[in-house]
Amino acid sequence: MKIITISREFGSGGRELGKRLADQLQFSYYDKEILTEISNKSGLDEGYVEKILENGLLRQYPITYGHSFSSILPLQHQLAKTELLLKQHQILKEFAQKGACVVIGRGADMILREYHPLNLFIYADLGAKISRCRQYSSDKEKLTKRELEKKIRQVDDSRARYYALMSDGQWGDKRNYHLCINTTELTIKEVVSFAAEYAKYWFGRNEK
Amino acid sequence: MKIITISREFGSGGRELGKRLADQLQFSYYDKEILTEISNKSGLDEGYVEKILENGLLRQYPITYGHSFSSILPLQHQLAKTELLLKQHQILKEFAQKGACVVIGRGADMILREYHPLNLFIYADLGAKISRCRQYSSDKEKLTKRELEKKIRQVDDSRARYYALMSDGQWGDKRNYHLCINTTELTIKEVVSFAAEYAKYWFGRNEK
Repeated sequence: MKIITISREFGSGGRELGKRLADQLQFSYYDKEILTEISNKSGLDEGYVEKILENGLLRQYPITYGHSFSSILPLQHQLAKTELLLKQHQILKEFAQKGACVVIGRGADMILREYHPLNLFIYADLGAKISRCRQYSSDKEKLTKRELEKKIRQVDDSRARYYALMSDGQWGDKRNYHLCINTTELTIKEVVSFAAEYAKYWFGRNEK
Repeated sequence: MKIITISREFGSGGRELGKRLADQLQFSYYDKEILTEISNKSGLDEGYVEKILENGLLRQYPITYGHSFSSILPLQHQLAKTELLLKQHQILKEFAQKGACVVIGRGADMILREYHPLNLFIYADLGAKISRCRQYSSDKEKLTKRELEKKIRQVDDSRARYYALMSDGQWGDKRNYHLCINTTELTIKEVVSFAAEYAKYWFGRNEK
């Protein structure tokens, strides 16, 4: 089974790398597609699913079934979150079984462990991450350096918390990955061809 | 300047990788050569230099000038060690200036920072490191699994302490390296061609 999981620091370019890598290798690409599928299968609003799973901002988002809103209690929040996490597990495994793919984030390296994925971790220095965030944000979204630093820290903290929920490992600990790529001094375009070579080599080796 | 530094966990195969990489790229290779040069320049016994710099086993080794031994006081030990570290700094820089090379260990990623080396970190799971140690040790040296675990921990602790002396960074922290390669599921021969490709690509990019 050819599965590549991409874990990445916010602003490191990991998502773009994953997309380009999937294109180059002609693998399926799963990122927001996972949320769409959860939404389709659960009848929950996709934006709500995203907020719960990606930001964990439970208290700020009332649960939405189709178009009807209802406010729920903290315990119910927790249950809803657990249910979404289980659903995500199940959908990730369904996707994995469909064939060669690249999966972005979501602790897929742990969740799909039984399929022996190739696990990449993409990271960069803070300065490079700030530049990359700036480059990709629209004029409306322009944040100050300090705001961006805060955002990067918050997103990565949330990823680390999520990972801790999913596994006994630590998010970003190099032991969980086969290859850790520092994108500080590289463009993502440059990293892609290299990562594609590595992946071909990795999966080729397993076929021998 | 084309310099590759290889930092590695004991038993991860990093040294072999470095040697093969240097051969493949036709770069100079510096490992024990550094100790020989320090010994030549200082008149100190090479075995002594090695013990001081690699194991930090100061108290067990009397200092040796040429063939005359003398036992020295702890403060003098410290001075001798500091002097050797400075000498090592100087020699690493001299080697770096001679042309393309691969340098194994010794915090060369930090010491040679001004030359912008490509810094690799090689690591593996404990089980893989134990197997690799077994594979390379002679029958006489055969250690039990527990003894090997202890040795791996000791050597890596000593490397981490040395690194802490040399820099404000932490040994093995992925931020200090451009690429971290997990050799658990690969033979070193397999990693070499891949690492060579990466290096060619890395240095080619700087030449553009």
